[in-house]
Amino acid sequence: MKDHIKVSKAVIKRLPKYRRYLEELKGQGADRISSGEFSKLIGYTASQIRQDLNNFGGFGQQGYGYNVESLHRQIGIILGIDRAYSIVIVGSGNLGQAIANYIHNYETGFSILAMFDVKPEIIGRRVNNVEILNFDALDAYLKAQLPDIGVITTGATSAQSAANKLTAGGVKGIWNFAPVDLNVPDSVALENVHLSDSLHALTYYLNSLQ
Amino acid sequence: MKDHIKVSKAVIKRLPKYRRYLEELKGQGADRISSGEFSKLIGYTASQIRQDLNNFGGFGQQGYGYNVESLHRQIGIILGIDRAYSIVIVGSGNLGQAIANYIHNYETGFSILAMFDVKPEIIGRRVNNVEILNFDALDAYLKAQLPDIGVITTGATSAQSAANKLTAGGVKGIWNFAPVDLNVPDSVALENVHLSDSLHALTYYLNSLQ
Repeated sequence: MKDHIKVSKAVIKRLPKYRRYLEELKGQGADRISSGEFSKLIGYTASQIRQDLNNFGGFGQQGYGYNVESLHRQIGIILGIDRAYSIVIVGSGNLGQAIANYIHNYETGFSILAMFDVKPEIIGRRVNNVEILNFDALDAYLKAQLPDIGVITTGATSAQSAANKLTAGGVKGIWNFAPVDLNVPDSVALENVHLSDSLHALTYYLNSLQ
Repeated sequence: MKDHIKVSKAVIKRLPKYRRYLEELKGQGADRISSGEFSKLIGYTASQIRQDLNNFGGFGQQGYGYNVESLHRQIGIILGIDRAYSIVIVGSGNLGQAIANYIHNYETGFSILAMFDVKPEIIGRRVNNVEILNFDALDAYLKAQLPDIGVITTGATSAQSAANKLTAGGVKGIWNFAPVDLNVPDSVALENVHLSDSLHALTYYLNSLQ
């Protein structure tokens, strides 16, 4: 695998989608897929797919196409989801619980250690057997458990202070759902889920079809 | 405004982000921003920004840059968020309620008419004064109310049947949170929020920083 850093963000954003389609093909029992068929399925040109995968050495064979199982596994390795990650979730309202359920139901390799909130009425509850702890206990918890990833599902006003605690506590990545741009050190990976970007793209498409 | 259809999906995906940064600049009282400053802020090259906006006629002025308020408004018009949309949410568990709260708290112009679920224990509850109705009543409700957008926050197994009902009921767009690829007619806009794509990009970045 080549150096991670030099690959453009746009390519990285496409890799999980490649893997998702390959997972579906695997589920359908497909052994291999031609670059042309893969292109039609996923909606990128065959040349785009080749170019993207060439960043990591390329995986296709002339006249054969791609081996579905192997490419699925290789992309998983590139994305780093062949290993395990521990997670804490900060903000345990509907959104935090929804993300906890999503990870519990659909993701393998990610284990939620604990959830945190400030609301006394939900502290102590369990979500898929994971306890909601008092936000005041977050600093000490991070020091003791050293989770890999912190998920921020607080409201906008609390998100930066949650991020500060998580980075001070040594998490390596933050998955942010709060609609606010966070400042984190360069050494911490940050991935934002901007719901508004997605909703506003939908209204564009909706109007373009009328 | 030029023809919507010809603009590439990648450009459309960037427009909401431009608008989001312009909204922040507006909030900070900025009147204008040079293409260079805007580029630094948003992380795209100035030439990329110019190229993207040129799809819609271009908005900058040589030696002046962009007028923040005007560009913010123009992009809003291009995205179609200068008008109002009515919404129904199918799936009213934690995720459905979280999305309802998100729209209620952070989006203007989108009004949630009703939410739907199959679980008797939550039917009749209210979320921000919007009632959770019985999923069995969805068909009749769609016919009577003709909402613009259907949000799918069911589990994976119920999502396609929710999509079928929504499209049969005449919604113009579907915002899908279920981790499954939906089949909808070409006349219906579909925007998927793939949480796994985002989480797996995070693990990539996290590993690339180690």
